[in-house]
Amino acid sequence: RQRLAPGAFVADKGNYRHFMVKEIWEQPEVVGRTVAHYLDASANRFQFPELGAIDFANLQRLTICACGTAYLAGYVARYWFERLARLPVDIDVASEFRYREAPMTPGGLALFISQSGETADTLASLRYARSQGQSILSVVNVTTSTIARESDAVAPTFAGPEIGVASTKAFTCQLSVLLSLAVYAGRQRGVLSEAEEARIADLMMGLPGQFSEALKLEHDIEQMSRDLSRARDVLYLGRGPAFPLALEGALKLKEISYIHAEGYAAGELKHGPIALVDEDMPVIVIAPRDELMDKTVSNIQEVAARGGRIILIGDGDAVRQTGLDNVAALTMPDIDPVVAPIVYAAPIQLLAYHVAVFMGKDVDQPRNLAKSVTVE
Amino acid sequence: RQRLAPGAFVADKGNYRHFMVKEIWEQPEVVGRTVAHYLDASANRFQFPELGAIDFANLQRLTICACGTAYLAGYVARYWFERLARLPVDIDVASEFRYREAPMTPGGLALFISQSGETADTLASLRYARSQGQSILSVVNVTTSTIARESDAVAPTFAGPEIGVASTKAFTCQLSVLLSLAVYAGRQRGVLSEAEEARIADLMMGLPGQFSEALKLEHDIEQMSRDLSRARDVLYLGRGPAFPLALEGALKLKEISYIHAEGYAAGELKHGPIALVDEDMPVIVIAPRDELMDKTVSNIQEVAARGGRIILIGDGDAVRQTGLDNVAALTMPDIDPVVAPIVYAAPIQLLAYHVAVFMGKDVDQPRNLAKSVTVE
Repeated sequence: RQRLAPGAFVADKGNYRHFMVKEIWEQPEVVGRTVAHYLDASANRFQFPELGAIDFANLQRLTICACGTAYLAGYVARYWFERLARLPVDIDVASEFRYREAPMTPGGLALFISQSGETADTLASLRYARSQGQSILSVVNVTTSTIARESDAVAPTFAGPEIGVASTKAFTCQLSVLLSLAVYAGRQRGVLSEAEEARIADLMMGLPGQFSEALKLEHDIEQMSRDLSRARDVLYLGRGPAFPLALEGALKLKEISYIHAEGYAAGELKHGPIALVDEDMPVIVIAPRDELMDKTVSNIQEVAARGGRIILIGDGDAVRQTGLDNVAALTMPDIDPVVAPIVYAAPIQLLAYHVAVFMGKDVDQPRNLAKSVTVE
Repeated sequence: RQRLAPGAFVADKGNYRHFMVKEIWEQPEVVGRTVAHYLDASANRFQFPELGAIDFANLQRLTICACGTAYLAGYVARYWFERLARLPVDIDVASEFRYREAPMTPGGLALFISQSGETADTLASLRYARSQGQSILSVVNVTTSTIARESDAVAPTFAGPEIGVASTKAFTCQLSVLLSLAVYAGRQRGVLSEAEEARIADLMMGLPGQFSEALKLEHDIEQMSRDLSRARDVLYLGRGPAFPLALEGALKLKEISYIHAEGYAAGELKHGPIALVDEDMPVIVIAPRDELMDKTVSNIQEVAARGGRIILIGDGDAVRQTGLDNVAALTMPDIDPVVAPIVYAAPIQLLAYHVAVFMGKDVDQPRNLAKSVTVE
């Protein structure tokens, strides 16, 4: 497989069949570039001169608001901000937030995420938050955009232009900025040690390599996609940060393959969705090695006991722990739980891509969808 | 159709074919009974002696946590607490909340909702919240339950025993308690006037009558369910409080008909799910008459423009506003937006029920599901 030459950010598919897969393979580079911007590698410290007067130390609360895939990046980040910075996070989709009239305590910080920086509902939510006395921070890929202009501070992603309608590299670059920001906030708030910061800095410098490792699963994923392309419905499960990742995996499948995939918190399975499980509905489970893996494995066993076909995305431990023969596994490299949500984006993107290609869909221009939703 | 005699809360289907439909038809009575408990009708004031030392006046934040349908009742209530009491609400499913290690400011109030009062993840979340210095309030149907015993205060629902696995009357009774509580909190916090309290009290006293009106749609719904039962997939859309109601409508369909229905915030449609829309996937839209109705109607038109089949649940205004001929409408009576989420539960429950009956499913004992999820 041909890899992209560094810096080749022109709207050209190069030797790739679609922009989407080109952009998937660009991720080691653009994630590395984004991390490098926020990380002083010589000192193993994160730095955000972009923040200006925004101060995490005395912040009571962070509100995160976005649409689509950017919303799901924010949802993953909620776990990081709460865990690493002990900063409570509110999160909502922008189309709900803007009309909810959520009461906000003045002096809070509101964070908006948008690849284009022009998403209409996100911009309207930004303006609502400002009217409520919030400081405004945005994470955008286009720094000349309206959302960037109307923000007090902008922490850009360095994904380069994203052409495929289904967002891939913008997502992982958003995650990279957000994890850097959560670590920075944790240090400012005095809840994360210098040693822990340095440890996460090391992990993040390792991201391009780990992401490249994960992309090597492409051949296995391509094989698996033939079977999956026959499914009309899919359940996508995860716990903790893997829950929004499951939502993202389902969204990708919806967008480009038109398979009705639905993401669900694995722990909610027994409260309804397990009724759907039969031999016809594959269940994809994201189970990175973290303190929730055992719980997720037990959900997998429940699905298997009801005749469900399981595709497990996890490392060797998760695969062994299920103790099941009839599980199709994508065996991921060993990855620290802190950075796992970024690396686990690789298989879910490739899976959606290859299913759609196998089905003959127009991957870069899926029906009914626009790249940026600039109207309400 | 035979109606249930007042007070007949024995586990007996009476003249109904299933417990579920019996419980659907019991709602005017049990909702009325629940409202009557919290409403001093002579003074048009809500009262909660159950709350003891819990004081909404100086509360900074309310955390709501539950599973399945009870979670969705809490999600609807978030809109009420924020709008009527200007009280910021965090909400999460219990299986996520218990492991998220959410930072909580001591002195806050955490609210747990469970029909049985024995839901394992909800109980574990309650214990986490207590360890974080929160006061604990629970809304349960079984006041002798573990969750009730471990709470500082209990605001019971008066739904009577619920036998059908798919929750119906417990949901609307939970909503009735939660709306009463939001109004009470709004008065305590000085953000809701006495006149507004009296107005909502009147609306809530009218709920049994309005719910009975809505149930008269049963014949239309039964007709519509034949067509819907041929669908394998359904999208269920709403905005504002109708968004969690759409999630509940989808959950009901999943649980008893095994149709893969998915609820979505209508404003997120363009960010992905609209790619799924074609002639084979019915889109059910809940559009009560409120300040969001115009936005929802415009989403309906987008779906129609892409060849989607629409089932609209709204009042005459919404139906007329779409300006479309090919919309199957369930025309609801005129309902004030404040109480609409309770009354709109009627058509979504009946729709799921009749689809499942038409498909010959075991409505009261759906496959793979238990009534109370008392293990993790």
